[in-house]
Amino acid sequence: MISKNNPGVEMYQWAKDLYPICRSITGAGVRETLSYIGNILPGLKIHEVASGTQVFDWTVPNEWSIREAFVKDEFGNKVIDFKKHNLHVVGYSVPVDEIMNLDELQAHLHSIPSQPDAIPYVTSYYSPRWGFCLTHNERLKLKTGNYHVYIDSTIDAGSLTYGELVIPGDSNEEIFLSTYVCHPSMANNELSGPCVTTYLAKWLSELKSRRYTYRIIFIPETIGSITYLSKNLTHLKRHVIAGFNVTCIGDDRAYSYLPSRNGRTLSDQAALHVLKHLAPNFKKYSFLDRGSDERQYCAPGVDLPIASIMRSKYCDYPEYHTSLDDLTFISPSGLEGGYSAIQKTIAVIEGNLIPQLNVICEPQLGKRGLYPLLSSKDRDSNVKIMMNVLAYCDGTNTLLDIAEIIHENMEVVVKIYQSLKNHGLVFEVTKS
Amino acid sequence: MISKNNPGVEMYQWAKDLYPICRSITGAGVRETLSYIGNILPGLKIHEVASGTQVFDWTVPNEWSIREAFVKDEFGNKVIDFKKHNLHVVGYSVPVDEIMNLDELQAHLHSIPSQPDAIPYVTSYYSPRWGFCLTHNERLKLKTGNYHVYIDSTIDAGSLTYGELVIPGDSNEEIFLSTYVCHPSMANNELSGPCVTTYLAKWLSELKSRRYTYRIIFIPETIGSITYLSKNLTHLKRHVIAGFNVTCIGDDRAYSYLPSRNGRTLSDQAALHVLKHLAPNFKKYSFLDRGSDERQYCAPGVDLPIASIMRSKYCDYPEYHTSLDDLTFISPSGLEGGYSAIQKTIAVIEGNLIPQLNVICEPQLGKRGLYPLLSSKDRDSNVKIMMNVLAYCDGTNTLLDIAEIIHENMEVVVKIYQSLKNHGLVFEVTKS
Amino acid sequence: MISKNNPGVEMYQWAKDLYPICRSITGAGVRETLSYIGNILPGLKIHEVASGTQVFDWTVPNEWSIREAFVKDEFGNKVIDFKKHNLHVVGYSVPVDEIMNLDELQAHLHSIPSQPDAIPYVTSYYSPRWGFCLTHNERLKLKTGNYHVYIDSTIDAGSLTYGELVIPGDSNEEIFLSTYVCHPSMANNELSGPCVTTYLAKWLSELKSRRYTYRIIFIPETIGSITYLSKNLTHLKRHVIAGFNVTCIGDDRAYSYLPSRNGRTLSDQAALHVLKHLAPNFKKYSFLDRGSDERQYCAPGVDLPIASIMRSKYCDYPEYHTSLDDLTFISPSGLEGGYSAIQKTIAVIEGNLIPQLNVICEPQLGKRGLYPLLSSKDRDSNVKIMMNVLAYCDGTNTLLDIAEIIHENMEVVVKIYQSLKNHGLVFEVTKS
Repeated sequence: MISKNNPGVEMYQWAKDLYPICRSITGAGVRETLSYIGNILPGLKIHEVASGTQVFDWTVPNEWSIREAFVKDEFGNKVIDFKKHNLHVVGYSVPVDEIMNLDELQAHLHSIPSQPDAIPYVTSYYSPRWGFCLTHNERLKLKTGNYHVYIDSTIDAGSLTYGELVIPGDSNEEIFLSTYVCHPSMANNELSGPCVTTYLAKWLSELKSRRYTYRIIFIPETIGSITYLSKNLTHLKRHVIAGFNVTCIGDDRAYSYLPSRNGRTLSDQAALHVLKHLAPNFKKYSFLDRGSDERQYCAPGVDLPIASIMRSKYCDYPEYHTSLDDLTFISPSGLEGGYSAIQKTIAVIEGNLIPQLNVICEPQLGKRGLYPLLSSKDRDSNVKIMMNVLAYCDGTNTLLDIAEIIHENMEVVVKIYQSLKNHGLVFEVTKS
Repeated sequence: MISKNNPGVEMYQWAKDLYPICRSITGAGVRETLSYIGNILPGLKIHEVASGTQVFDWTVPNEWSIREAFVKDEFGNKVIDFKKHNLHVVGYSVPVDEIMNLDELQAHLHSIPSQPDAIPYVTSYYSPRWGFCLTHNERLKLKTGNYHVYIDSTIDAGSLTYGELVIPGDSNEEIFLSTYVCHPSMANNELSGPCVTTYLAKWLSELKSRRYTYRIIFIPETIGSITYLSKNLTHLKRHVIAGFNVTCIGDDRAYSYLPSRNGRTLSDQAALHVLKHLAPNFKKYSFLDRGSDERQYCAPGVDLPIASIMRSKYCDYPEYHTSLDDLTFISPSGLEGGYSAIQKTIAVIEGNLIPQLNVICEPQLGKRGLYPLLSSKDRDSNVKIMMNVLAYCDGTNTLLDIAEIIHENMEVVVKIYQSLKNHGLVFEVTKS
Repeated sequence: MISKNNPGVEMYQWAKDLYPICRSITGAGVRETLSYIGNILPGLKIHEVASGTQVFDWTVPNEWSIREAFVKDEFGNKVIDFKKHNLHVVGYSVPVDEIMNLDELQAHLHSIPSQPDAIPYVTSYYSPRWGFCLTHNERLKLKTGNYHVYIDSTIDAGSLTYGELVIPGDSNEEIFLSTYVCHPSMANNELSGPCVTTYLAKWLSELKSRRYTYRIIFIPETIGSITYLSKNLTHLKRHVIAGFNVTCIGDDRAYSYLPSRNGRTLSDQAALHVLKHLAPNFKKYSFLDRGSDERQYCAPGVDLPIASIMRSKYCDYPEYHTSLDDLTFISPSGLEGGYSAIQKTIAVIEGNLIPQLNVICEPQLGKRGLYPLLSSKDRDSNVKIMMNVLAYCDGTNTLLDIAEIIHENMEVVVKIYQSLKNHGLVFEVTKS
């Protein structure tokens, strides 16, 4: 049972509000989505990058606008209508207004025979074409005859739009969160990402203090991350110590982890620790299974420490990239679980200092009320954990290293560190 | 069958002699025990450290003396009597001489319901209190009524006592052995340690030559090792290359190994090698299972290479810290097995030089009578081992490394090295 | 089915031609064998090293010549005749011409009771003696009586003979191949080695270009490799980057791998990669199982990167070192499979450059026709492999490292690299 005002309920409402918008990698849908998020996160700054701008090996494409799209049969019935579902039109379709027979039309249709009730999601960003997507069952009903195909779209010079929020912390070292806002009406592989990221930003903004600075971006996938990197690579390489690509994080089926290319960054270590304790059966993917913006963030020469914590991973659930990835596929509890996993991981990184013992040999815990004064056969397990934490406060291990060595949850270890620090027994080693 | 004059029989006799003494972390019992050991090891030097001395985070406690302790019922019957078993009184009990009813008395009694025939071992070194320990069956027999409780003890300024023996070797590099003499009448978790250590000292003293110097201490647990470290830390960190905490090494049930905090020191490598060959089913504990003076020796900033080779490990046998850990729990063969394990481990360290081949390519073993001159289908296995030793005498591997690489017992490898050295084929690399 | 003119057929014909020659570690048999190989490899240079030459810890032995050897019974029947099989005489037998009874003769006979139809292979290079080998069944037929034993041999000052071929490449870094030509009529543990090595040399000579220089030697085992090393050690240590000892590589039963002493050289990495893809069930031996010239090449102080790729390994098939290791034990397909394994391994090393991506982030493959322009649910697996190769072209991984990381065959990875290079997307990092 999820009560109202819970993070999950709030995120799910955002997803519902954002679901109908027809997003693509550029255009009105992205701007409308960022405007909605900006109402929740007042600090969100909107950037526009002009079409034609060279970004590394790529060029920012022209902006796509679509107003109407349908296929009418000879009797004037709209057999396919973009108004009913924005997946019905191939993304970046060029305008068309023609009469053609069914054979000619078929060459422009996309459906999935093995999923006859799903409208597939198809795009053609970098090659001018037009097309329609529909369920295979609808397609089979099309009869011989002439059809009026109509797409009222434009692909003109404009700009690529993205949102950026920086939440300052005590250090200028940064934790980087990236999510994308470029898919039309799909829920897990689109809206779960920006909704969870927005809630994380809200939580971070409201913290009394933060060790690290947070840089959070809402971008179109691939071309957006490449564009962002082309403008910020030097800064990111200097400051980012950890980060996550936030996607596919709203359903209830699974928890998933996909490493950075390096595989042993702080992001990886923290994510693995949290998932091991939160969801021991989580699915561990290889970097070879990647498919989102970590492709850019971990590319040779970029090499940012970006890992992914997900629920059901893209490409690995049947509803992926179809109309079946809708609001019934995600849920308040799914979103809340995903949020919680990343939130705990960030908390692990925030708390991950290097402790050092203030005394030589074990401190006398008894005189501080931290150890039982009557010694008998049984040992107290909380005392044992405290002794184990102490045993590794040698100025080389981080608290997360210690949590792993002694097989305890980081949350427990951080609490013990605080208690020991309050007794003056440990201090934080400052990096030189 | 263990014949007379065997190490096991001799050590067991020592344990019998030392069993009745009421030891604690300070006082007459420790001194009497050290005096007995000093008769066997004439070089043993006794040290006294005054009560109140600051030792790192701790203070040397006042000295505890106890002369008599009993509980009498209304009829003058001694229902608990320290003279019958020195575990009956809580260690460091303050004096008391009062009449009280059973309810009042119960608050000062300790027993173990699940082990109704065992007297538990309880202490209160650092908090003034008094108490009695008894079997749960005896406790259940106590009837309503008044009791005379009497403890004739004193806790006064005095000193902490420990013994130290240094046996010089060719090098000023040291092997360090530590055992404790602070428990009253218990056998495995007390007397096995000093008895085996005494026998090791005797063996080492009688060797014609020793590569290393041996430093052997008999101390009270915890406060004793902390005191010793506070006086000798710089020396120990500079000179000690290996060492063992000797405890729980007298029964027949198991062989156990507990690593140093580092886990990969010479002590660990040698102990694992010996136990693998001597007792392949030995129990391998984690440093998280520690509980004796390795807590101090391996503390952050101390980090001596101290591991533990045991028979049944403290905390891990039901008789532990009760009157059931008596002379029937240990045995001559148990002591001898434990002695043998540490003795072999020391021999491994003594023999662990870095060999280097004197020739390029394989030497011609045949002309030296080390290789069969008629070559046919079958290979001699001793020759094969010799060839394998030779193949790794490259000036980087120690003999112990080689034993591990070629899966042979160090004793075999050392013999082969000697034979090869006698033929002038290998030499010892001196460390630069 | 192996067609004529296939490598296997050609190698098998060479083995048939060389089979009858009575080779030993010196003498006419070696010279005749090298002369045959020199006809195929015109660049082969023959070296003679005089008897008595000191080579590290060894001395080049006198040369052995044998003309006739038999044992006749009282009726003049030759019960053992060297002319029938050159294994019948113990290698390096001194001359003898005596009449003796059966008991006296038995002391000079060798047979294998458990393999009653096999003539064993026995030698006595470094201790003067004579002897005969025969099947155990033949031996059991010998009757009481006198025998005439006759060996017409000489062991005189002469030389040790070996062949050497250097095939130059673009670099003076060398790949080293060594095989031996010192066993009499045996097939897998003798002729397969020189035949496969000869074919490899032929293939290498005919290549349009070679990245590396190839040094290929045909030597007597042990004394030959020691002799060669004593003359060339400095050069080999400076130039050889990889190499293989070629032996036991002609039967069909198995593929085998024996590592270098180091175990992680380029030779090991390449051999393991090829065998994993070519023969996933290959037998992986330890360096402790060694028994051929890697004993010298990997000896301490020599430490060349020499591994072994074999079919059925010496010492590990029943026919080994007996007359049963004959031309029926090897086959054209066995030889071809062995040749292919080493040939592919050399190709892996030739192709193993360090690639680096020319752009930051992923390149836009679509505009180069390397990526589908219509994006839908399914990903093309060839495109995925190309993306995976690209993801690791970071200037630190070699192509072989990348093949291992992405679990693809090196042949596929090299092809993708070539395609990416043709599109200007990657370049080869030159070692500094």
